[in-house]
Amino acid sequence: MSRTIKLAVIPGDGIGPEVVAEAVKVLGAVTARDDITINTSMFELGAARFLETGDVLTDADLASIQQHDAILLGAVGGVPGDPRLKDANIERGLLLGLRFALDHYVNLRPCTIYPGVTSPLAAPGVVDFVVVREGTEGPYVGNGGAIRRGTAQEIANEVSVNTAYGVERVVRYAFEVAQRRERKRLTLVHKTNVLVFAGSLWQRIVNEVAVEYPQVAVDYLHVDAATIFFVTNPSRFDVLVTDNLFGDILTDLAAAISGGIGLAASGNINPTGRFPSMFEPVHGSAPDIAGQQLADPTAAILSVALLLDHLGLTDAAARVNEAVADDLARRTVTVRRSTAEVGDAIVTLLTD
Amino acid sequence: MSRTIKLAVIPGDGIGPEVVAEAVKVLGAVTARDDITINTSMFELGAARFLETGDVLTDADLASIQQHDAILLGAVGGVPGDPRLKDANIERGLLLGLRFALDHYVNLRPCTIYPGVTSPLAAPGVVDFVVVREGTEGPYVGNGGAIRRGTAQEIANEVSVNTAYGVERVVRYAFEVAQRRERKRLTLVHKTNVLVFAGSLWQRIVNEVAVEYPQVAVDYLHVDAATIFFVTNPSRFDVLVTDNLFGDILTDLAAAISGGIGLAASGNINPTGRFPSMFEPVHGSAPDIAGQQLADPTAAILSVALLLDHLGLTDAAARVNEAVADDLARRTVTVRRSTAEVGDAIVTLLTD
Ligand SMILES: CC(C)[C@H](C(=O)O)[C@@H](O)C(=O)O
Ligand SMILES: CC(C)[C@H](C(=O)O)[C@@H](O)C(=O)O
Repeated sequence: MSRTIKLAVIPGDGIGPEVVAEAVKVLGAVTARDDITINTSMFELGAARFLETGDVLTDADLASIQQHDAILLGAVGGVPGDPRLKDANIERGLLLGLRFALDHYVNLRPCTIYPGVTSPLAAPGVVDFVVVREGTEGPYVGNGGAIRRGTAQEIANEVSVNTAYGVERVVRYAFEVAQRRERKRLTLVHKTNVLVFAGSLWQRIVNEVAVEYPQVAVDYLHVDAATIFFVTNPSRFDVLVTDNLFGDILTDLAAAISGGIGLAASGNINPTGRFPSMFEPVHGSAPDIAGQQLADPTAAILSVALLLDHLGLTDAAARVNEAVADDLARRTVTVRRSTAEVGDAIVTLLTD
Repeated sequence: MSRTIKLAVIPGDGIGPEVVAEAVKVLGAVTARDDITINTSMFELGAARFLETGDVLTDADLASIQQHDAILLGAVGGVPGDPRLKDANIERGLLLGLRFALDHYVNLRPCTIYPGVTSPLAAPGVVDFVVVREGTEGPYVGNGGAIRRGTAQEIANEVSVNTAYGVERVVRYAFEVAQRRERKRLTLVHKTNVLVFAGSLWQRIVNEVAVEYPQVAVDYLHVDAATIFFVTNPSRFDVLVTDNLFGDILTDLAAAISGGIGLAASGNINPTGRFPSMFEPVHGSAPDIAGQQLADPTAAILSVALLLDHLGLTDAAARVNEAVADDLARRTVTVRRSTAEVGDAIVTLLTD
């Protein structure tokens, strides 16, 4: 049974193109033997495009991206402090632009400490959890404003918007993920003791959906307490569900404890399939090391595993994960490999 | 020159009374030789009081507390899940109640890894920074609401309120702190790429005040990136300034990396002196270990050092800090001491 996957590729800026090249290489290798054809269309979006044309994400871009089954993104963002990008904020315009336009309400971010990888924690234990971050609400909706700007009387507000509709769909997804995992534990993270309205909505929905998943054990942590457990006992976590901003903070922390942002993959998912989902490493464009084959493509390659999983190609996804784990376990030697060499090594492990 | 300090003491719930007893003991010991009299008034506030009377913090409580030079608080909060406290939220009512009523706009939280203390980080380096958290604005103002509660159409909002007035006074305080420290570095932590209105207000004020402090080196981190540095390179930090919610999250993380919430002290400060400032350990009431002399009073005792500093008794503050550091350095033996034994040991070190 042959299958063609239409993949929109957004290499982006900085190290984006380098890591994406390896990710695409791995994707080709892992699907080759399954009679799957990957049709890639390249989208030159990001700071470079903005500087050339003034556009970040046009309606035409969006319409064209939507013709695809999935999106693979490298990293976007120009050189920090570039005056020409001062108010552009490519990351917001592009990443959040796509997440909102394509209704990526699940932002899926696994955190695993792979054997052979050094964690900054002295004794992390076995760490393998996944954060299900809400992707389309919270303080990310752009519902802020200011009056008397630039004066001593300025007031600047930001509104976190939370809807039962938005919370329920992501909470439901998190329960599904938990249900499929061995430990079947779900932790809601919020700040219900201060953000009482948003907090009680989240808590109510979790309580309600929990009834349908009697096998899933549910607990709750305030976001501040959760950060403590991330460093003192990260193995307590299985699945976490949280809002957009808390998820943003916790997943960077998760990446740090599991050996760095160079290994952290993410999926921006619309589980209904109405819009293509987008897979990207959590790291940024790192312009300082761009173009030198210094970047680690592992996070981009692990994002390919999430992509395959999302497309129902679970075997291929597992093979990519295993090849990456194998490669990481062998990395204890202090040989520095180029971006392409890491990609090649993973391809070799895959096809052996 | 004799001096009398009127101290309002709020022992609170759980381990609060035990740790406060040691803190008061240390305060008495360190001030004795300076001809300073500590006049303490006890305020029985917290979950126990609420269960008895239904009151969390009355106007009469507030008026009476305001007659004091400073406040020492242990910890408040009942047994988690106690149905009688379901909607009471003693922590919010009391801690935030006091912070807001007494205009504690600076929430000062130092983070030091003391010699002899084990950090969960494998190689933390020398860590000694202080977080200046805003205490009266942000998403803590209680400016939230919900419609269609309990239905599938519920919408729950939370508004983060930021004023130039509120941001400037805490930023100015942070610059003053940085200016007095050796490294003179100040890091603004925010999420300016998403919370654009609040973020640009914070960034503008920092830029403006920075001009008056040419010796202070200023940088900026997104809150998500900051958490990465907390675990990968915490020694890069000197003084951090951030909003109420980010500060809440970062200071629990800071406590975790520096050896636990049992050592983290905090000051809720009104630098103008118009209202008494309040000093408290960051930890909660830990009802599970209450009344057994198991709690570590160190955070409460370090809060006394912050209190002394705030009252201008900098020598006494330094002596308390040194005695605590001495005691911590000796703790490598695996003898478990009672709460009172730790207090006594620190008093002995102080008076030796
Ligand atoms: C770049 C930024 C807008 C983005 C976010 O805040 O979501 C990033 O931090 C992330 O986590 O993907
Ligand atoms: C108990 C809670 C209201 C409080 C806060 O969020 O400020 C606590 O976490 C703290 O940091 O002092």
